[in-house]
Amino acid sequence: MASMSLDNPAVQSYLFYSGILGLKVLGMSLLTARARYSKKVFANPEDAVAAKGKVKFDDPDVERVRRAHLNDLENIPVFWVVGALYLTTGPAAPLATTLFRAVAAGRVLHTIVYAVKPLPQPARGLAFGVPFLITIYMGFKVVQHYVSAM
Amino acid sequence: MASMSLDNPAVQSYLFYSGILGLKVLGMSLLTARARYSKKVFANPEDAVAAKGKVKFDDPDVERVRRAHLNDLENIPVFWVVGALYLTTGPAAPLATTLFRAVAAGRVLHTIVYAVKPLPQPARGLAFGVPFLITIYMGFKVVQHYVSAM
Amino acid sequence: MASMSLDNPAVQSYLFYSGILGLKVLGMSLLTARARYSKKVFANPEDAVAAKGKVKFDDPDVERVRRAHLNDLENIPVFWVVGALYLTTGPAAPLATTLFRAVAAGRVLHTIVYAVKPLPQPARGLAFGVPFLITIYMGFKVVQHYVSAM
Repeated sequence: MASMSLDNPAVQSYLFYSGILGLKVLGMSLLTARARYSKKVFANPEDAVAAKGKVKFDDPDVERVRRAHLNDLENIPVFWVVGALYLTTGPAAPLATTLFRAVAAGRVLHTIVYAVKPLPQPARGLAFGVPFLITIYMGFKVVQHYVSAM
Repeated sequence: MASMSLDNPAVQSYLFYSGILGLKVLGMSLLTARARYSKKVFANPEDAVAAKGKVKFDDPDVERVRRAHLNDLENIPVFWVVGALYLTTGPAAPLATTLFRAVAAGRVLHTIVYAVKPLPQPARGLAFGVPFLITIYMGFKVVQHYVSAM
Repeated sequence: MASMSLDNPAVQSYLFYSGILGLKVLGMSLLTARARYSKKVFANPEDAVAAKGKVKFDDPDVERVRRAHLNDLENIPVFWVVGALYLTTGPAAPLATTLFRAVAAGRVLHTIVYAVKPLPQPARGLAFGVPFLITIYMGFKVVQHYVSAM
């Protein structure tokens, strides 16, 4: 059985990078708020009244940040779960640590090239693709390891 | 090493309030359905046919519930993960319990003032902000505790 | 206290089906990409330039896949968390295993009848409803089991 002890360096790496990604996802709300207040566009009448702005759903700067946020929601919770499950399969710590680090780095870069300083493709494609493929790899490892429980 | 035993009252509190928030998120689908059927507006032609309604993407009542739902998805899964990770850092049980309780109360109030009985700001801002800041605090504690695993 | 050992067949079933659902959620990004490239419609100017397509937010085929994806985000992370919490309450393994299997089957069918081969209602309603009700059941069991931690 795999060691899920908090002494395991792969587990510690998972905990550290999952925490980083949690803070990163929350940071998207601050980026959205910054875009909304700088353009004075809001999604709710009560917010527009409070900030003397207007209700608007198609501001390109706000929508770009929102798309980056949604892309986080499509990918980071899957990583959190699949990454934790992958730890139960007993991966070698150096490999697992490298994968967690690459996912975290990729998702942070994704936010930067998508919502902070937009860059031409394939910048965002790469920042999306590396964590995506790693998470698929970990998911396959989990499914393969527990396939007898089908 | 922190006690992650199910006997730990902080762990039990996390389990209870995480369960409450899970049910709350699922409840948003019922609120959306209620808004859709009362206004007869749907997102899919097959749904509109089945309910003798029409396809429409900008009904303000439906969209308000959907924004509240999306805000849950932006915040509650982060809490689930960061809250569990925070438990591994060995927080004092009374503090952890209070934080979990405040997050759950804040997110329930958020739904009420956003989607059930809309109130002027800063009602929603406060209901959003308290859980948001607590989750950031827990995230920083996790990252700080495991920083040697970077 | 419930056995959360990796030897427990209910735990193994949870790990297997959670992994399957993780891969399924990631697959939605591939379905979206397929729809975007086949219709040449994109959400970002940099993507449209790279693929010689155009920016468009209301293509019905793309939006249908995106709605299926969002529905996953509304339901699957709640299952991951509530399912894991439910295991801590010590359910009978045959029951828990059957519930996990039904949730996974329901969510896979949901994607098929929503985004791959759209079918008239109540196909999607059933594929949504069975996992939804099972997750509510598990959530109630969790809340009931830990209610003394309120």
